[in-house]
Amino acid sequence: MNLKTYLKQRQALVNGTLGKLLPSRRDFPASIHDAMRYSVLGEGKRIRPILALAASDAVRGKRARVLPAACALELIHAYSLVHDDLPAMDDDDFRRGKPSCHKKFGEALGVLTGDALLTFSFGLLAGVGSRVNGDAGVRLEAIREVAEAIGTFGMIGGQVADVGEGRRRPTRKQMERINNWKTGALIAASVRVGALLGSASASRKPAPGALRGLARYGEKVGLVFQLVDDLQDGDGAVRLEGAQAVRRRAQQLTRSAIRELAPLGKAGEPLAGLAEFILNRKV
Amino acid sequence: MNLKTYLKQRQALVNGTLGKLLPSRRDFPASIHDAMRYSVLGEGKRIRPILALAASDAVRGKRARVLPAACALELIHAYSLVHDDLPAMDDDDFRRGKPSCHKKFGEALGVLTGDALLTFSFGLLAGVGSRVNGDAGVRLEAIREVAEAIGTFGMIGGQVADVGEGRRRPTRKQMERINNWKTGALIAASVRVGALLGSASASRKPAPGALRGLARYGEKVGLVFQLVDDLQDGDGAVRLEGAQAVRRRAQQLTRSAIRELAPLGKAGEPLAGLAEFILNRKV
Repeated sequence: MNLKTYLKQRQALVNGTLGKLLPSRRDFPASIHDAMRYSVLGEGKRIRPILALAASDAVRGKRARVLPAACALELIHAYSLVHDDLPAMDDDDFRRGKPSCHKKFGEALGVLTGDALLTFSFGLLAGVGSRVNGDAGVRLEAIREVAEAIGTFGMIGGQVADVGEGRRRPTRKQMERINNWKTGALIAASVRVGALLGSASASRKPAPGALRGLARYGEKVGLVFQLVDDLQDGDGAVRLEGAQAVRRRAQQLTRSAIRELAPLGKAGEPLAGLAEFILNRKV
Repeated sequence: MNLKTYLKQRQALVNGTLGKLLPSRRDFPASIHDAMRYSVLGEGKRIRPILALAASDAVRGKRARVLPAACALELIHAYSLVHDDLPAMDDDDFRRGKPSCHKKFGEALGVLTGDALLTFSFGLLAGVGSRVNGDAGVRLEAIREVAEAIGTFGMIGGQVADVGEGRRRPTRKQMERINNWKTGALIAASVRVGALLGSASASRKPAPGALRGLARYGEKVGLVFQLVDDLQDGDGAVRLEGAQAVRRRAQQLTRSAIRELAPLGKAGEPLAGLAEFILNRKV
């Protein structure tokens, strides 16, 4: 199957599952459920859940056991966009070609919808609405991974450094850290969560070095993701190093990420394709 | 020990633990860690963590196993206050006699600090920074309880109904549900989380009916908490039923909550004292 077909199939799977997991807009109070669905469903490449599913597949995990957690990662991404768009933050009136959440539903609901998506995500990760089986320890580990990746030493930290303490011109090392926090940490966590839940549900143990390789792959691909963002915005790393150097670094990191998949053999191929996709994507 | 001394000792324990658990204001990015500590430390009755600790004690749980989760409940309460105070929500410039978080740190940090406190709480519940032992299943159950209590069929739902869909004059039944969601659900969850983690770490099984009694106690006390809020604001239930009827109902519910503690015997006494405290407290 070529990558385009693979992505389309996975996007359809994720979109269908998100639609079923999210509360209906008929549930009281309707406005927040409407706003949650509006902010999540429709457009979106679904890269984070697709990475989680691919990492689980790579270690032969059971799809049903990772799918709700994979969707939680997309909901967390959606929460971060809803709050980023608020007037107090980036003040964006549009998101993916339609009015942003607070423009459509008002600013109070903008705040509450982000809060609700984040809260709902942790519930999903903990197994709300799905039968949780014998892998409680692994699920807790996944929740810790995610909480750290999106906290003040992760995604939120990247935001803060971006809006506030990044005003002073940062060093390349600081920029790398901020960049990695801003989007890289959640991308990396997506791969790790998929690998963790997948290997817990697989009928045989992953190959030696597979989990460590996946973790390293996730970190590298996460950084590439942010570098490509920077290249498109002419911002961040590009201002320090120039576009050419950043592009070269992103290419090197992608090759290096793909090499980390060696212990997985053929089962790692979709992840290699996803790494190329992340390098070459248009935002 | 009388209740006043008991509360003071517990508040000191919770405050000391919160101070240790929260990131230092020297950690990069400093501003958000400063804002988190500012919004949590200092004033506060700490009713939610104290209820969790008391519920754990009532089933002879190990304090170290419930303390971080108890503190997480206070951080969730703090997150809800920080977001409530935002200009888009209640627009409050002051909180507990000092400038509210967004007044002190700016609106962007107001949004991000709430997000960070919520995220950090789920990390704590999942065992970030503490050794998680054999009670993973129970911890997951506690996370699900909390996520449901503070989601759109809980605390956030109460907020939404309050700011938006509550504009039409609600029936008494709707009002009860909204009220219960707004603060009651987190209070009830605090008791259940304490009871869950406590009984998992206790050396002997709780008495028959103890856990169910604690759950009912939590629900009733949660409702009393909100009714007392309404009495002080002359709002909510008071507008529908009148102050006298609401006060009588709060007293009846408190007596009924205390009766639920019967299976616990003497070990339930602090919870009985807390129920009286919640009934008689001045906001």
